[in-house]
Amino acid sequence: MLSGSCLSRVLRIMPVFYTKRRFYASLIHDGWGGKRLELSLHEADTLLFLQWRRNEGIHIMTDGRGESDESREARAAAPLEDAMRLHPFYRGKIEIVPRCCVRDVNDFAIWYTPGVAAPCRDIAAHPERVFDHTSKWNTVAVVSDGTRVLGLGDIGPEAGLPVMEGKALIFKYLGGVDAVPVMLDEKDPDRIIEIVLALQPSFGGINLEDIAQPKCFRILDELRRRARIPVWHDDQQGTATVLLAGLLNALRVVGKKLEDVRIVFVGSGASNTAAARLIFMRGADPAHCLVVDSHGILGAHRTDIEAKKDIYAAKWQLCQTTNAEGRQGAIAEALEGADVVIAASRPGPGTIRKEWVARMNSAAVVFACANPTPEIWPWEAREAGAAVVATGRSDFPNQVNNSLGFPGIFRGALDVRAKTISDEMCLAAAEALASQVGTELDAEHILPTMDDWEVFAREAAAVGLKAAEQGLAARPLKREEILQGARRLISRARGLTDLMMKEGYIPSPPD
Amino acid sequence: MLSGSCLSRVLRIMPVFYTKRRFYASLIHDGWGGKRLELSLHEADTLLFLQWRRNEGIHIMTDGRGESDESREARAAAPLEDAMRLHPFYRGKIEIVPRCCVRDVNDFAIWYTPGVAAPCRDIAAHPERVFDHTSKWNTVAVVSDGTRVLGLGDIGPEAGLPVMEGKALIFKYLGGVDAVPVMLDEKDPDRIIEIVLALQPSFGGINLEDIAQPKCFRILDELRRRARIPVWHDDQQGTATVLLAGLLNALRVVGKKLEDVRIVFVGSGASNTAAARLIFMRGADPAHCLVVDSHGILGAHRTDIEAKKDIYAAKWQLCQTTNAEGRQGAIAEALEGADVVIAASRPGPGTIRKEWVARMNSAAVVFACANPTPEIWPWEAREAGAAVVATGRSDFPNQVNNSLGFPGIFRGALDVRAKTISDEMCLAAAEALASQVGTELDAEHILPTMDDWEVFAREAAAVGLKAAEQGLAARPLKREEILQGARRLISRARGLTDLMMKEGYIPSPPD
Repeated sequence: MLSGSCLSRVLRIMPVFYTKRRFYASLIHDGWGGKRLELSLHEADTLLFLQWRRNEGIHIMTDGRGESDESREARAAAPLEDAMRLHPFYRGKIEIVPRCCVRDVNDFAIWYTPGVAAPCRDIAAHPERVFDHTSKWNTVAVVSDGTRVLGLGDIGPEAGLPVMEGKALIFKYLGGVDAVPVMLDEKDPDRIIEIVLALQPSFGGINLEDIAQPKCFRILDELRRRARIPVWHDDQQGTATVLLAGLLNALRVVGKKLEDVRIVFVGSGASNTAAARLIFMRGADPAHCLVVDSHGILGAHRTDIEAKKDIYAAKWQLCQTTNAEGRQGAIAEALEGADVVIAASRPGPGTIRKEWVARMNSAAVVFACANPTPEIWPWEAREAGAAVVATGRSDFPNQVNNSLGFPGIFRGALDVRAKTISDEMCLAAAEALASQVGTELDAEHILPTMDDWEVFAREAAAVGLKAAEQGLAARPLKREEILQGARRLISRARGLTDLMMKEGYIPSPPD
Repeated sequence: MLSGSCLSRVLRIMPVFYTKRRFYASLIHDGWGGKRLELSLHEADTLLFLQWRRNEGIHIMTDGRGESDESREARAAAPLEDAMRLHPFYRGKIEIVPRCCVRDVNDFAIWYTPGVAAPCRDIAAHPERVFDHTSKWNTVAVVSDGTRVLGLGDIGPEAGLPVMEGKALIFKYLGGVDAVPVMLDEKDPDRIIEIVLALQPSFGGINLEDIAQPKCFRILDELRRRARIPVWHDDQQGTATVLLAGLLNALRVVGKKLEDVRIVFVGSGASNTAAARLIFMRGADPAHCLVVDSHGILGAHRTDIEAKKDIYAAKWQLCQTTNAEGRQGAIAEALEGADVVIAASRPGPGTIRKEWVARMNSAAVVFACANPTPEIWPWEAREAGAAVVATGRSDFPNQVNNSLGFPGIFRGALDVRAKTISDEMCLAAAEALASQVGTELDAEHILPTMDDWEVFAREAAAVGLKAAEQGLAARPLKREEILQGARRLISRARGLTDLMMKEGYIPSPPD
């Protein structure tokens, strides 16, 4: 199945691959507009195709059915190999450049001493003008102590820095937001809170990241209460927002109502705890839903959690509000008759078994979000009867990726100068994200992809309007103003990146 | 006196101005190469000339003799007016851009999850590789609590942010260094120390700035002792380095030896305390020199300082090491028979009087560094017999400007991955800075100007070599390697700025 506009390219592909298995390739070169293309090819061709794809910049998306282990591993390993090759080549993912004119060194008399004294005095007299005279209006700190980096655990702040730089890169490229990675050599939650509060003056917002639970809950709650600028923990609110958007669309695909479905949350870490809160807030019935941790289904019977309810407050609350029927057991028992499973737990495969999915309700929805390997392979879930399957990976359909959320959400929060990012603002962002899929919506397209740039501007507008509605915006704007401003800043960021690549300031990667 | 290459331009200037006073204009347009040009013009033309200068991008340097108060004030006010107009236009002086390729969003699988896990693991296993996989190798935090911003005092961290952004801009443009402004909402020195220590993982160095004394001394000393990366307080080490360079050349001009001269330090704040330490280390005889604070000449008789010697340790040491003859009195008495005065005290004019300078030794050297107004106007000092006069201002000859130091010094420290910036490295930087003037050396050219880019690469090389010699460099390099690397990074920073201006990513300032 080839779309017309891809034909010339496809003619170059066709001789290489033919029948037996199906690959979905998002073609990404200019003029290809992210059109999908179904290819059929022999298993033996897979590795050749991978090699070719890397040279040609073609991105493969597959449901992986029938793929050989070798091919699957090669595909999973490719980004890691590229990363080890390219990280030392570029030596960092972000740099700092002037935002103001430097016609010659005499301009430093304006930007530095003596001229700078004037805006300094102006801010001292009118504190809110720091947003006019400096970059604060657009700058966010990405703060982490490196205690829970990706699925790698407590690898420390230096080893976590590549992730936060990646986040900063995505903040700029997708949201037009300037983000500064701030890795903290400090693990004590109280001191982290004090440090983040002390860092506020330079920043318009704080993005917490990869901080271990349970301390991450208290750190976020305390900072949301005490900070003057929005503080956000992407592993909680960001993941929850994108999951909710995916869930809303998945339920549209299977024709079920959020109010009616039984959702089973597998894992009760930062993201699932926040996801449950947001999903219940949007209308799901907690009493009808279940949460499972490594010791089994949560409920009033879980005295082990009750004993630690001071530090696991949110989890103990889930024990009391979910599982009204008092079900006990593990994942297998929880999934019996469930409509949706949202797993953010131990990397698979095998964390969730095919036979358990088979005992879910008809038209089941499976979110298997563990990285790098989902709790269950998507083709296994499909073979077990799941109607919609989503994972955290970009090489399977339906990627649940935080990058679909935070760039647009912070864009909106910064633009209206929101004091905080409320759960209602997250809900608004999730609706905007879900509605962006539009008529493309089907079982393999429950979320937009990151190259659908417009989604970030729409999220920004939804978030900014909700902040204004809730009285949280110091600088309320109209929907069209936020949209236009966001589009301008995001397209500027992409244009500047392209210019730097074209002019060699960002060199081409080595062969 | 017109240089040939300026002639066509000068023909445009000539009809406007003629005889009576002399202006030195550094012509800065392309192809004019910073050539100086002496003009003679009527006093009445000064304001016209100022207006014209602003439109044409011509920078005036004058010794101000005979200039009207109105003209002098207009000249001093111009950068402040420009600053108030241009700060809100640009809304910040720096922004963050990608340093790595983003061919399309699929590259985020390399820069972010899942690919980024590989460099993270690599750093966890080999901590020093954080310098290969991230921007840490080139990134410095500019940290301030805003308690002593310029001459404005404790205006707070938000109001100090424009200064730190200006510093970050200069770090990049003159040194190719990525610098992040970090304003701290925290004034307690112990907590500042803890926060800065906690911030180390993301950064290759820390530049402290505009922190009040006496706490700044302990903060710097403690951090130099405890930090794994170089920590530098620009108001101490930076100013001291540039002052020393200027002093060495000033003494060459007047034909005196550092070992023999009597130097009077007026003011005993952060910069003069550090300057005295460095200048004595370079060979001046402390016993023969004097330091004056607002209560008079320092010496063993100053029981007021002795009573507070715990917090004013460096100052009490100056009491014990300087002023062997036990002189008492104020600035007037101290200057009697002095060869050099280095003032970093209360803005003038009038802090140092003409008649006091007249009682200095012949061929006296005057550094009047208070901003925005020097302790004595340069023309007054000259009329009183001073042979060399330097100030902190760019519109008089001999500007003593920190920007001549920190960009090159950090460039060198980062390039050899120095563990600290020792006083010996500061001395080496001062020598490189002084020697850069070369055959241009005269009473009005004791320091290079910031548009002499080569000076930063030379300082970097001097600093890097000294670090290696002292066993402080984790990555020792040869002189030529540091020079070439520094030239490449600095010229890249300028080139990128020019490109962004040319392509409209940095818009032209409004008329």
